Amino acid sequence: MRRTAREIAELVGGRLIGEPEREIMGVASLATATEREIAFVESEGHRSQAERSRAGCLIVPEGFRLSGRTLIEVAHPRRAFADVILLFHPRPRPTPGVHPTAILGEGVILGEEVSIGPYAVLDRQVRIGARTVIGAGVYIGARVEIGEDTLIHPNVTIYPDVRIGTRVIIHSGSVIGSDGFGYFLVEGRYRKFPQVGSVIIEDDVEIGAGVCIDRGTLGATRIGRGVKIDNLVHIAHNVTIEEDTVIAAQTGIAGSAHIERGVQIGGQVGIADHVRIGRGAIIGAQAGVPSGKHIRAGEFVWGTPARPMREFKEQYAHLSRLPHLRHMVAALSEQLEALRQLVLEERAKDE
Amino acid sequence: MRRTAREIAELVGGRLIGEPEREIMGVASLATATEREIAFVESEGHRSQAERSRAGCLIVPEGFRLSGRTLIEVAHPRRAFADVILLFHPRPRPTPGVHPTAILGEGVILGEEVSIGPYAVLDRQVRIGARTVIGAGVYIGARVEIGEDTLIHPNVTIYPDVRIGTRVIIHSGSVIGSDGFGYFLVEGRYRKFPQVGSVIIEDDVEIGAGVCIDRGTLGATRIGRGVKIDNLVHIAHNVTIEEDTVIAAQTGIAGSAHIERGVQIGGQVGIADHVRIGRGAIIGAQAGVPSGKHIRAGEFVWGTPARPMREFKEQYAHLSRLPHLRHMVAALSEQLEALRQLVLEERAKDE
Amino acid sequence: MRRTAREIAELVGGRLIGEPEREIMGVASLATATEREIAFVESEGHRSQAERSRAGCLIVPEGFRLSGRTLIEVAHPRRAFADVILLFHPRPRPTPGVHPTAILGEGVILGEEVSIGPYAVLDRQVRIGARTVIGAGVYIGARVEIGEDTLIHPNVTIYPDVRIGTRVIIHSGSVIGSDGFGYFLVEGRYRKFPQVGSVIIEDDVEIGAGVCIDRGTLGATRIGRGVKIDNLVHIAHNVTIEEDTVIAAQTGIAGSAHIERGVQIGGQVGIADHVRIGRGAIIGAQAGVPSGKHIRAGEFVWGTPARPMREFKEQYAHLSRLPHLRHMVAALSEQLEALRQLVLEERAKDE
Repeated sequence: MRRTAREIAELVGGRLIGEPEREIMGVASLATATEREIAFVESEGHRSQAERSRAGCLIVPEGFRLSGRTLIEVAHPRRAFADVILLFHPRPRPTPGVHPTAILGEGVILGEEVSIGPYAVLDRQVRIGARTVIGAGVYIGARVEIGEDTLIHPNVTIYPDVRIGTRVIIHSGSVIGSDGFGYFLVEGRYRKFPQVGSVIIEDDVEIGAGVCIDRGTLGATRIGRGVKIDNLVHIAHNVTIEEDTVIAAQTGIAGSAHIERGVQIGGQVGIADHVRIGRGAIIGAQAGVPSGKHIRAGEFVWGTPARPMREFKEQYAHLSRLPHLRHMVAALSEQLEALRQLVLEERAKDE
Repeated sequence: MRRTAREIAELVGGRLIGEPEREIMGVASLATATEREIAFVESEGHRSQAERSRAGCLIVPEGFRLSGRTLIEVAHPRRAFADVILLFHPRPRPTPGVHPTAILGEGVILGEEVSIGPYAVLDRQVRIGARTVIGAGVYIGARVEIGEDTLIHPNVTIYPDVRIGTRVIIHSGSVIGSDGFGYFLVEGRYRKFPQVGSVIIEDDVEIGAGVCIDRGTLGATRIGRGVKIDNLVHIAHNVTIEEDTVIAAQTGIAGSAHIERGVQIGGQVGIADHVRIGRGAIIGAQAGVPSGKHIRAGEFVWGTPARPMREFKEQYAHLSRLPHLRHMVAALSEQLEALRQLVLEERAKDE
Repeated sequence: MRRTAREIAELVGGRLIGEPEREIMGVASLATATEREIAFVESEGHRSQAERSRAGCLIVPEGFRLSGRTLIEVAHPRRAFADVILLFHPRPRPTPGVHPTAILGEGVILGEEVSIGPYAVLDRQVRIGARTVIGAGVYIGARVEIGEDTLIHPNVTIYPDVRIGTRVIIHSGSVIGSDGFGYFLVEGRYRKFPQVGSVIIEDDVEIGAGVCIDRGTLGATRIGRGVKIDNLVHIAHNVTIEEDTVIAAQTGIAGSAHIERGVQIGGQVGIADHVRIGRGAIIGAQAGVPSGKHIRAGEFVWGTPARPMREFKEQYAHLSRLPHLRHMVAALSEQLEALRQLVLEERAKDE
């Protein structure tokens, strides 16, 4: 595929500066782009990389100039570049249809142009919305409902009674709706507390690979609209995650925790049971939020137990200076003793 | 389904207080229950939630009273409620039989009323006990033995020679018997040390989703009777986990660690190789137990490196007061200097 | 199978001391070996275990003697023992051939003696090298290339366009080539940034169970020759891991991090985005390396934020002695006050 700079500028609604007929054959990063490739400059902070780049064309923010280069000026370079990537790397939808090896239980209802891959198994009364794609080897339990334009990658497992919205993406190896971790002791042995709730995944959620989301004990575990979850995340029974929250890889969220909207959770964070995290809070990577704790809206916390970032940094700085503090105390002790000797000598002289 | 309060009281062997004919149509939590639903009160500590609840019937501990409400008094409310949940949400076993697409190798032996799902693959000489259920897409390697009444959810992978007991539950995506992480260096490059041991999973174990349990290098990795393992846990080669231990999500246990019985391990805990954890110990979430360390029976530890909880809390409290300590030291230094000046002035006066 | 000590000594090129005709029927560890089994002694440090061992034959390092025992003396006991393990536990390669239930898309090219398991799905234009084994239920996306003598265990998922080398091992449940975690905000909502790069896995890599390796956003995520990755590790988009690096279980490596060769990374380590780890560095278990940080070649770091081990240990020791430091400061304060009183009394006497 080849496109001129002018065609690309038209696609992204940008203003062309330089050679309109320059031919572009692919997309790349600033560091690796060749003269036949287009790259993007996110902000003025990337000027020196842009100067060194050999890219044949650059998508740049408004007001950004680089003499002798072909530029496409836009309000939001990353967004425009996302469109250019899809121009050169269209993601072809699989041909609609049910692969002959797919197994559909009684009462399964499929929307228009659905694609069901080889060896997928849909148990009874599953409903799949229009244009949704189910990959090879996916298992979908009884009565699961999935909306439109959703993409379930190969080898995902969905337990019965889960509800999944529209434009959701679930990556391979993920498990949705497994039993929560609930037991009670009878004479020193654990017995299983039945886990009969469900999981609700709302529209525009993306779930990475190897993620496990447990069903509620009674009610539902809820993943709100637009939530983005990275690989290998664990979400326990009855957790609520509100809209537009993002969760980095390997984070774990224990039972009944409630994450409000627009929260940013770093990688390998641990959130204990019954925690509440306020709107727009930021939880730094590897932080641990203890059971029942409430993190206020907008707060930025780090460490285990998690505390406000400023406090964490202050404590850490003090920790680093502890050897110095010990020396100061030892010196003070000596000085005090020296002064005492002086006083005692004076006193002896007086007598 | 509908049941009267009287019928439910009979089922759980409880004492009915209030309206015997009140009709109940489902189970719910105290917070969400309607007048047609039953909820439970674990202890006196949940009184205010019980008072606010709209539940039509409450299962309560002995001696708990709430005027004007229909109550069922029992010795162990959570246990009784578990039975009530199963009354309203019976878990139907799949119809026994081998799905025509399942592949059984030579010499596979199946017990009575076994259920093997679509696209399951059982390699040669696998033995499956009576009433055990193997989900869709499960792979079971050669010579694996599985006991009775066990439930293997879809898309689980079991390597050859693993032994699994009776009434075991394994959730989707889990992998049992993969090679341990063992190498040796030859001229700067790692060579694989063969991993030819096995995994033994005893009766009444439950394993969550996405769990990985490696086979022993020579002997076996052993998961004792009644052990409960949450999602995304890693258990390395030659680990021993004794009876009735519980392990929360995303914990990792390195090679040859030995966890005694009745231990409670929090989420995201790291236990290094050759660690020994004594009977009934508690390891707090995200703690890290260093290589070769021995945690004593009954001890409660936290932090990395893990230390007794009391010590951890004391150190943490001191860490929080470090800024104050620095101020104290600075003030002492000034006061000492002031006193020295005073002494020197006195001395000068004397002379 | 039975072999004499002499036959085993010949196999490993060792020097036999003791009974050449002693019969050995299996391998075991020092602790569990019987008289019919062989075990190995890694070094002089294991002498007491060797003395207690009932093993019928011991592979020992040069110069190691144990009277009355049959020994095989070699330069590298672990390496020799690895060969003996494979003698008693040969790993039979599956019979070459494509299982009739495997599905091969258009243009798939298979090398000689390839084995493709039941229900494996190879999308169009996949190429598989000679003697490579693809397990049951594996999904391989379009245009994936896999080298020779590679082993893909059951239920692995490989996304399109991934390239995998020769003698690679990938364990069950792993996902290679899923989308990286990349979004941009438009009016408060996250939009997906297309992830169109690939993953390159070089020769002699081993990848554990449940590992997730994301494809690059534009370029490739690269796993260098001889890298060994334990279970449940997360590797994000555009990460580079150079040759002969080892990564223990549950570690996460964020976007564009660059790990140089010969690095050792412990379990549950978190490496943030754009970190660089120098050649031969060691990252202790559970350490957290903050965004953009550069760890120098050969350095040994621990803690979050990661710092040189010596510094970590010093700070930790100081932390442990904090209660003592507080007492010292309190005592100093009292002593200072006592001295001040003394001075003031003296002064009053003088007046």
